Amino acid sequence: MKPNTKFATPVLVVLSLLVFAFNPVQENKNTAPPDPLPSWNAGTSKKAIIDFVTKTTSKDSKDFIPVADRIACFDNDGTLWSEQPMYFQLAFAIDQVKAMAPQHPEWKTTQPFQALLEDDIHTALAGGEKAIGQILMTTHAGMTTDVFEKTVKDWMKTATHPKTKKHYNEMIYQPMVELLKYLRLNGYKTFIVSGGGVDFMRPWVEQAYGIPPDQVVGSSGKVKYESANGKPVLIKLPEINFIDDKEGKPVGIHQYIGKRPVFTAGNSDGDYAMLEWTSTAGGYPRFGMIVHHTDAEREWAYDRASHIGKLEKGLDDAPKYNWLVVDMKNDWKKIYAFDKMK
Amino acid sequence: MKPNTKFATPVLVVLSLLVFAFNPVQENKNTAPPDPLPSWNAGTSKKAIIDFVTKTTSKDSKDFIPVADRIACFDNDGTLWSEQPMYFQLAFAIDQVKAMAPQHPEWKTTQPFQALLEDDIHTALAGGEKAIGQILMTTHAGMTTDVFEKTVKDWMKTATHPKTKKHYNEMIYQPMVELLKYLRLNGYKTFIVSGGGVDFMRPWVEQAYGIPPDQVVGSSGKVKYESANGKPVLIKLPEINFIDDKEGKPVGIHQYIGKRPVFTAGNSDGDYAMLEWTSTAGGYPRFGMIVHHTDAEREWAYDRASHIGKLEKGLDDAPKYNWLVVDMKNDWKKIYAFDKMK
Repeated sequence: MKPNTKFATPVLVVLSLLVFAFNPVQENKNTAPPDPLPSWNAGTSKKAIIDFVTKTTSKDSKDFIPVADRIACFDNDGTLWSEQPMYFQLAFAIDQVKAMAPQHPEWKTTQPFQALLEDDIHTALAGGEKAIGQILMTTHAGMTTDVFEKTVKDWMKTATHPKTKKHYNEMIYQPMVELLKYLRLNGYKTFIVSGGGVDFMRPWVEQAYGIPPDQVVGSSGKVKYESANGKPVLIKLPEINFIDDKEGKPVGIHQYIGKRPVFTAGNSDGDYAMLEWTSTAGGYPRFGMIVHHTDAEREWAYDRASHIGKLEKGLDDAPKYNWLVVDMKNDWKKIYAFDKMK
Repeated sequence: MKPNTKFATPVLVVLSLLVFAFNPVQENKNTAPPDPLPSWNAGTSKKAIIDFVTKTTSKDSKDFIPVADRIACFDNDGTLWSEQPMYFQLAFAIDQVKAMAPQHPEWKTTQPFQALLEDDIHTALAGGEKAIGQILMTTHAGMTTDVFEKTVKDWMKTATHPKTKKHYNEMIYQPMVELLKYLRLNGYKTFIVSGGGVDFMRPWVEQAYGIPPDQVVGSSGKVKYESANGKPVLIKLPEINFIDDKEGKPVGIHQYIGKRPVFTAGNSDGDYAMLEWTSTAGGYPRFGMIVHHTDAEREWAYDRASHIGKLEKGLDDAPKYNWLVVDMKNDWKKIYAFDKMK
């Protein structure tokens, strides 16, 4: 049968137009796809991340990971936002002590509160973990969860960092925000696994990182349910429930997430156990990342000798476990969104 | 200009064929949309659910709830699957005692193990919570989390229920599986909030209900991280970490989810506090549901006088909080997927 060419030609024209319209990927055949990590400089770090995501999400790859198992865990302090000159949660607690001081005249003569009120942080924290515990319990307990949430939100809107003069939630790392988004676009479920307080993080991390409250694992105090007159509340008690740090991190991952991650990022030896827990799991390829603070100019430079964010064992064992050590100074075009591109 | 009709006709034919292919919704313009809850009989219960989901997800509704706040929590035992003649987790524990007995000759003369090995459940459980605690600790601790997970999966594949002779994970309520799916299709994030053990549920609930492990809140024991020779493990300790029951349920919701739900379903007074916590939250409309066990023939009938799944306060206060009391016998066309439609 002779083909009806009069009919076939326009059909092909329309079909090709429609293929064009319905396949935007083919439309830009000669244009590179947009860079998923624009704040990362080209180099081995960026390449390692993209290679891992590509090979674990390509259907025909031997390293393919089903969506249900694409679990990615991120430390917060020093990994997603800054932690100098002190953990931002401690800055919050100190501001709360000052705000609460009028109701506590006894603090004028009681340490560590007296020193805090005199802006003598050094003396206040000389008492070590005990002093910090007192400050945290005083400012993080004895109120309802609703009141605490509002207090955190209000502080985030008003308080500013002594060095940058920016709000604390502006001091999140733009390259890491891009990495979180890139992972999610590729079917990864992103979690925070932080030593910080979960009630301190949840009010702002969804907006900052796109991570919803139920995907935030952190340290916590006990809470108590009290119901009177149909107005139930949860009261924050001055009692530790869980410390999500060091060996507590794999424990937290088990208790709250229930699956071993395939991608984990941290910055200090407090993250060593969860990186180890990730990298030794087998089955799938696993990715461990350490954010190395190497930029004294745009952020801070510290590792082995630092009191906050000490990183020693992690650096020593990074080659053994093939952990990617990200060099903030050279790998990142900018640290914060408000930075100019390097 | 005279239109080129020779050209236009086939173009229109192809276009209409393609519109047909790319718009399956328009294809069925005169057909009703498929019933999202086919195992629910038409009636006030089904209507209440659909009305709530419709009004909270319609952009122009005054009751619209943003996706981020569409948190739905479900009890498991008696709400998503059966719990008679004993919690299925206890049936699992008893089977484990029998499997472990050869390594424990002393159990032949030690209660409650002796009675369990003699199939005298009544005597074994006469010791009340203490005896149940002993059975659970013995069978749920002292091994790695990996070994326990495998044990649960193996048991689910082999053990059968004494009455139905079905595998336990087949005794999930088909109408509730449909409800979970319907909520998720409408942007709700579905969670389990159960008194049952989280490590007992996680290995099978994803397949059964479509709920991933990190969206399962339950009771738990403590676990300990141990790392030797680069082979870290988590050991389950014989120590309670958290009891997710009664007033513990709103506590668990806060600690693990971090948002107050807008939709909560339970079946016993163990769910009262989380229903109350949901219904008194304000801000958005809230939906509370109680699955009432009214079907002695296809399932079990029990409420106020029952030892397992006792439901008294919930029934009394359902009108006050406008909780939907689902009548399993009359509202559900089938209980289990393997049932014939009523």
